[in-house]
Amino acid sequence: MTKWVYSFSKTINEGNKEMKGLLGGKGANLAEMSSLKLPVPPGFTVTTEACIDYQNNEEISEEIRTQILAALKTIESETGKTFGGGDNPLLFSVRSGARVSMPGMMDTVLNLGLNEETVISLAEKSGNKRFAWDSYRRFIQMYSNVVLGMNISLLESTLEDLKEARNVELDTELSAGDLKQLVEVYKQIVVQETGKAFPTDPMDQLWQSIAAVFGSWNNPRAIKYRDLNGIAHDWGTAVNVQSMVYGNMGDDCATGVCFTRDPSTGEKKFFGEYLVNAQGEDVVAGIRTPAPINDPSKNDSNRDEKTLEEYMPEIFKELTETYIKLEEHYKDMQDIEFTVEGNKLYLLQTRNGKRTAQAALKIAVDLVAEGIVSKEEALMQIDPEVLNQLLHPRLDPSAQKNIVAKGLPASPGAGTGQICFTSERAHHLNDIGEKVILVRQETSPEDIAGMAASEGILTARGGMTSHAAVVARGMGKPCVAGCSSLSIDTHALTMTIGSTTYKEGDWVTVEGATGEVMEGEVPTLDAEITSEFATFMGWADEVRKLRVRTNADNPEDSRAAVKFGAEGIGLCRTEHMFFEPERILAVREMIFAETTPARVKALDKLLPFQRKDFLGIFTALEGKPVNIRLLDPPLHEFLPHTEEDKKELAKYIDVELKEIEDISERLHEFNPMLGHRGCRLGITYPEIYKMQVQAIIEAAIEAKKNGLSIKPEIMIPLVAVDKELSQLRDILEKHIKSIFADKGEEVSYKLGTMIELPRAAITAASIANHADFFSFGTNDLTQTTFGLSRDDAGKFLNDYVAKGVLPQDPFVSLDTEGVGYLVEFATTQGRETNPDMHIGICGEHGGEPKSIDFCHRIGLDYISCSPYRVPIARLAAAQAEIRNR
Amino acid sequence: MTKWVYSFSKTINEGNKEMKGLLGGKGANLAEMSSLKLPVPPGFTVTTEACIDYQNNEEISEEIRTQILAALKTIESETGKTFGGGDNPLLFSVRSGARVSMPGMMDTVLNLGLNEETVISLAEKSGNKRFAWDSYRRFIQMYSNVVLGMNISLLESTLEDLKEARNVELDTELSAGDLKQLVEVYKQIVVQETGKAFPTDPMDQLWQSIAAVFGSWNNPRAIKYRDLNGIAHDWGTAVNVQSMVYGNMGDDCATGVCFTRDPSTGEKKFFGEYLVNAQGEDVVAGIRTPAPINDPSKNDSNRDEKTLEEYMPEIFKELTETYIKLEEHYKDMQDIEFTVEGNKLYLLQTRNGKRTAQAALKIAVDLVAEGIVSKEEALMQIDPEVLNQLLHPRLDPSAQKNIVAKGLPASPGAGTGQICFTSERAHHLNDIGEKVILVRQETSPEDIAGMAASEGILTARGGMTSHAAVVARGMGKPCVAGCSSLSIDTHALTMTIGSTTYKEGDWVTVEGATGEVMEGEVPTLDAEITSEFATFMGWADEVRKLRVRTNADNPEDSRAAVKFGAEGIGLCRTEHMFFEPERILAVREMIFAETTPARVKALDKLLPFQRKDFLGIFTALEGKPVNIRLLDPPLHEFLPHTEEDKKELAKYIDVELKEIEDISERLHEFNPMLGHRGCRLGITYPEIYKMQVQAIIEAAIEAKKNGLSIKPEIMIPLVAVDKELSQLRDILEKHIKSIFADKGEEVSYKLGTMIELPRAAITAASIANHADFFSFGTNDLTQTTFGLSRDDAGKFLNDYVAKGVLPQDPFVSLDTEGVGYLVEFATTQGRETNPDMHIGICGEHGGEPKSIDFCHRIGLDYISCSPYRVPIARLAAAQAEIRNR
Repeated sequence: MTKWVYSFSKTINEGNKEMKGLLGGKGANLAEMSSLKLPVPPGFTVTTEACIDYQNNEEISEEIRTQILAALKTIESETGKTFGGGDNPLLFSVRSGARVSMPGMMDTVLNLGLNEETVISLAEKSGNKRFAWDSYRRFIQMYSNVVLGMNISLLESTLEDLKEARNVELDTELSAGDLKQLVEVYKQIVVQETGKAFPTDPMDQLWQSIAAVFGSWNNPRAIKYRDLNGIAHDWGTAVNVQSMVYGNMGDDCATGVCFTRDPSTGEKKFFGEYLVNAQGEDVVAGIRTPAPINDPSKNDSNRDEKTLEEYMPEIFKELTETYIKLEEHYKDMQDIEFTVEGNKLYLLQTRNGKRTAQAALKIAVDLVAEGIVSKEEALMQIDPEVLNQLLHPRLDPSAQKNIVAKGLPASPGAGTGQICFTSERAHHLNDIGEKVILVRQETSPEDIAGMAASEGILTARGGMTSHAAVVARGMGKPCVAGCSSLSIDTHALTMTIGSTTYKEGDWVTVEGATGEVMEGEVPTLDAEITSEFATFMGWADEVRKLRVRTNADNPEDSRAAVKFGAEGIGLCRTEHMFFEPERILAVREMIFAETTPARVKALDKLLPFQRKDFLGIFTALEGKPVNIRLLDPPLHEFLPHTEEDKKELAKYIDVELKEIEDISERLHEFNPMLGHRGCRLGITYPEIYKMQVQAIIEAAIEAKKNGLSIKPEIMIPLVAVDKELSQLRDILEKHIKSIFADKGEEVSYKLGTMIELPRAAITAASIANHADFFSFGTNDLTQTTFGLSRDDAGKFLNDYVAKGVLPQDPFVSLDTEGVGYLVEFATTQGRETNPDMHIGICGEHGGEPKSIDFCHRIGLDYISCSPYRVPIARLAAAQAEIRNR
Repeated sequence: MTKWVYSFSKTINEGNKEMKGLLGGKGANLAEMSSLKLPVPPGFTVTTEACIDYQNNEEISEEIRTQILAALKTIESETGKTFGGGDNPLLFSVRSGARVSMPGMMDTVLNLGLNEETVISLAEKSGNKRFAWDSYRRFIQMYSNVVLGMNISLLESTLEDLKEARNVELDTELSAGDLKQLVEVYKQIVVQETGKAFPTDPMDQLWQSIAAVFGSWNNPRAIKYRDLNGIAHDWGTAVNVQSMVYGNMGDDCATGVCFTRDPSTGEKKFFGEYLVNAQGEDVVAGIRTPAPINDPSKNDSNRDEKTLEEYMPEIFKELTETYIKLEEHYKDMQDIEFTVEGNKLYLLQTRNGKRTAQAALKIAVDLVAEGIVSKEEALMQIDPEVLNQLLHPRLDPSAQKNIVAKGLPASPGAGTGQICFTSERAHHLNDIGEKVILVRQETSPEDIAGMAASEGILTARGGMTSHAAVVARGMGKPCVAGCSSLSIDTHALTMTIGSTTYKEGDWVTVEGATGEVMEGEVPTLDAEITSEFATFMGWADEVRKLRVRTNADNPEDSRAAVKFGAEGIGLCRTEHMFFEPERILAVREMIFAETTPARVKALDKLLPFQRKDFLGIFTALEGKPVNIRLLDPPLHEFLPHTEEDKKELAKYIDVELKEIEDISERLHEFNPMLGHRGCRLGITYPEIYKMQVQAIIEAAIEAKKNGLSIKPEIMIPLVAVDKELSQLRDILEKHIKSIFADKGEEVSYKLGTMIELPRAAITAASIANHADFFSFGTNDLTQTTFGLSRDDAGKFLNDYVAKGVLPQDPFVSLDTEGVGYLVEFATTQGRETNPDMHIGICGEHGGEPKSIDFCHRIGLDYISCSPYRVPIARLAAAQAEIRNR
């Protein structure tokens, strides 16, 4: 019989922290903390497998129900409370908990088990009527929202109306009678809105809540989040059912969130926020601005609040001991949720805390220095993707800054863009190439897509652990949160700071490391590389086996990549050089040439430009290897489109305009991706490749004279047949010999090919006879292996991922089963023919950690990626080595 | 040491008929005849490997020269003649001879070894000065043409001028003095044209001739011929150097060509033509109309000539004994070249004779009946492609025919088209979709491309073995040759028959089986199937293991295919049905639907049409299996293009014209081949596939009620990922169940997929979990494996084949190394998952014999091809079984 339910409690504790796949992160850590004898309220976790079972059967099976009922009995006997009745009623929190934290799913229902009877018992047992009715009111509100799927603004406005009628500001000022009355009104609203009475049977409430958590795995927000974060759609979520403790039973109660180190900077300081007489959701939701737990947690907006250390010194001491214990146990910075009920501390959650990239690096380097983790453990703690944040621009310190407001420094980095008040609009503007800053009262999971589309996020409410802050840090987006001087009018689409009103479309700049909000567009600079970064990346370089190169087409990008640690160029595309204004006419003249001599004449004009380009790149690379791909795109890509350009060309090459149009027509292709391009051009017009090779070799000779030892790698693209390569190799080698003779100087070089077509991969053993190296062009290889045009796939690929047809976009993460099969096959076959074969990958997958892991496993020599992803690739390569040892 | 030269003579005979690859067909057969002790003039063959060696080194190597000189000595000692001097000079013919007969290469130089000295010796030895100088004159003419590459019209007109000056009609009427004078003029012309004196050293003549033959392997005509006939470019040609015998030494000399059976009808009759006092080239070139060798060889144009049987009865008797011996030895109809010198018979060549498809079938069936070959040997004797001729149209016997001329029935079949006088023009008109009849004085190898582009060929001169006749029979084109009443003016571009003048563009019809030429366009009918055809195809069916299906989209094609022996439909494309006028509006309405219900409404209109289509096809197939592919092309293929159509649609679906244009724009794809098509449409719009499946199932139920047991095969196209198939299978099977419930009737069916993308082939093991069958769509699989769009490849694919990058067009003959690898891999993997998996091929390769051989070897269950290729596929499948046993 499958075990669907795992208890965590003092008497029976069935899980541990390694079981995240089955119990979710939250459930696994609750069990782990229980086994550490920490004060965790008892409960049980229904597994992720049960979620999948639920998805398939559309109901909770009998077997699962039976196991849940058994686990429930355990809690009753441990707590002495009874679920659904008695004078000491057992109430539950019900929380979702997936393998990784996932905003977007149903999160939490608290106080489950309350009804007209149990609320009376709770009031009597706690001696606090107001608390009991307030709990019931909250329960109805949460349940209506997350289980019944109601729009709860009606409930909220009823509460606001009541406060206004009673002339009070805080919820806590309402009396038990007020709240009882509110419960009645809430229930009437539920009947109006859903057509059904609010459920009174606690068991019914429990089944509905568990089903709702399971169901929320597939709500659109959750799917969107998984898509954005590359999370598998078939993992499922666990459900944690835990006996309630109360932070809102009075002033000897509190609830809070803390981090064992600063999640923004990584500084070793205990850091957190709490609220007296509140439930946990109040902190996270950012509705009330919370107080600091200690002095180091103070900032401008909470400086005057009493710290937990001051308010509950014993609790603070116990919490301090606990966090040290947890950090040592988990060997990582922890994000802890706690509740104090009647001056007793309870832990509700611990997990490895989300952090900024800077913080992650500092924490990793510190943990190694403190002897808590080894270098390799440290390397494994950082998701390579977060390094992306380090490479984000920052504000130009010399720029004029008109700071108009200051909020919480919720996620570092500088962002500048047009003000935009809705997620949809942000998304739309981003689509058409505009930069936006998303400005919201507070964000919610519905805003994920809008946040992803923005340069930065600015919220008026919410603390450092609010939704906006947490999500922005995860995304590496600048975020200023809780900027209380901001007043937003969502109808007029304006925001006001002091006396100035800004409308949608006005430019604003946010600096997430300082919390500053600036008027207009402030210039930004590249990120600085810290000493922690250098130390950490040094460890990665010691470990990794894969070399890391970059894809760069000009000296500037090449220099940036070298700064980020690139060990050479894996792909230099020569065609980008063709588009510069002074060259494009000669390129077009070459295309329109009717004879080989005419073509050669035009190519002769391009030769000095290309030679200069290559010399610049060789110089930037300081002697590191440079792999240059000869002309790849079909010639029609270089044709003039506007009437004016056509006329200019007609004049330049002295033909009728009509002829320009005729030849353009003749060069048209139905499927340019599969057309007359790559080495097919080289076979048809060998003079084009000869010119390019001449430019490369002459530049290398010049570089050699300048004291640089350059070994260019000449790459023939789009080979499908071994003879394409062998014939071109013959032609080009003869030409190179003649250049050597001409110049009286030689350089060594390599000549090889892209493997980017299925046929090339299949016949790699033959092709390897003529190649010094292979470089996998996995972009095109993915297109042809799938028969899927990248330019056209957008229309349905999201749908494919949403429906689970594909686990992820194969243009982002290498499809190991299909495309990867060919890559591995070609590698094996190529090396069988030519054991010295040097093999790398230059498709965009070369900068994606999962794909890098694959490249490592199949034994490639190097990966190549865009300059800004080089550090990511270096770390991912190190992790691949550690993971696969 | 490599053996580069093989002698054939009475004393040393080193080759045999099995060595065609090394010695060429001609060389192998000369050696074989020598070993049969037939009267073959002695000589030697320089191998095809020597040709390749020559191509690589651009010269004849020392080693090869040494072996040639040794072989030459053997001939000198056997004949007692001396090459290059002496009173009994040895003269040679030098002939090319590839593995298969190949017009287009340099053919023959006769009388090699003549110069000012040897011509005197020859005159003395033969006692015939005129003959000696005529031989020298002919030698210079041939050598200038084929070795020096001169345009010999200058030489020819000099000869004509001389004849005019002497007031004679025939060459033979010129005196020795005339011819000696002609030789002088010829030599002057050679100096003028080439800048060099005509070579006098016989060894020099020999080396130049051998080099010229080797070089001719790569002349454009030869390459073109190989391209058209699928001959490998790396075979090379052998050179046959043979001592001369003379058919032109006087009236006791003759030369001729004969067939052991009638090459047009296959009738068992000895059949041939000859010329008294002539060299072999005179017969083949068709310059003089030859005489019949016997009564059965008589026809309208040679009826009055004396037969060889009458003129040289002894020689005819010896020739008769020889042909019977050769046919029994070679077990096939022979095409024999002979020369009579001084009343002595010499054999210069024998080979399996080219024949029409009808003749091939009759000969094969007769040879089996005569006990000369077994059924399987007979099956192997016929190239499946020639069956194509049998399926060609013939004239409608009831049609009005205005016969204006009659020529030789050189190649059967009826052709109708516009008169066209040049090969280039024929090619051009064919390209733009016009039908042409190529009309020529006589054809030459330059005309190959023009002949291929024509519906039929009509020549004014030449016999049944003329160039036009031989090539047309090979191509299966109708040909009327030697139509002497025809007078062609190549300047005015007109032809005159009697008093009527026809100009280019006028319509004419030829009937190659009767030799009739008709004015205008005469309606044609489908070919009749003869009893030999039925017998022969019956043998093929007994032998073959592969089943043969057809690709057909409508009842008419289906019926034709069944008549030709199709055992089911392998591919029924449903989209063709969408284009009929009464449906296309509903199709477009479906495309423009914004919601699923709107789409379903439009699809409901299409349902009855599709159901009727399928019922018609099921009925035509009489219960044989029918494989139906669901919608495959991208939706934009169905969009309106003309302004009028757009307006009609806007009105029909009641939207603004602008919206039609917007949506068309939105549906545009950069690479439609790799776009939103195939099962990707099914995933996005399951309702389309549901409608199609409903039509299929309901039609099958109706067919069942009509007493037909139909088991439809539903095929999902363009699957790349197993989940595409599993999800669609789920949806469609549920739908089918509901139809069964609805109708109260069930039919059995299969559901499977095309394997037409590399990823599908690679992951076939997973896909097979959800498929009852695989069908290889090798057209798309070739496109994606090569990364080569069929629509765009035309621009460079010919160049690829010409340069030897590819051995052949991979869209014609399956690329076994690349695409075939995937087909075999997927077959093996698919059967490993699902041993009952039924596997076929439905790409156009399914009708191409080499590809069929491959399909047989890897164990496919069936092939599918267009209706008219079904007999070819049946025979090719039988041959594959015999060949691979």
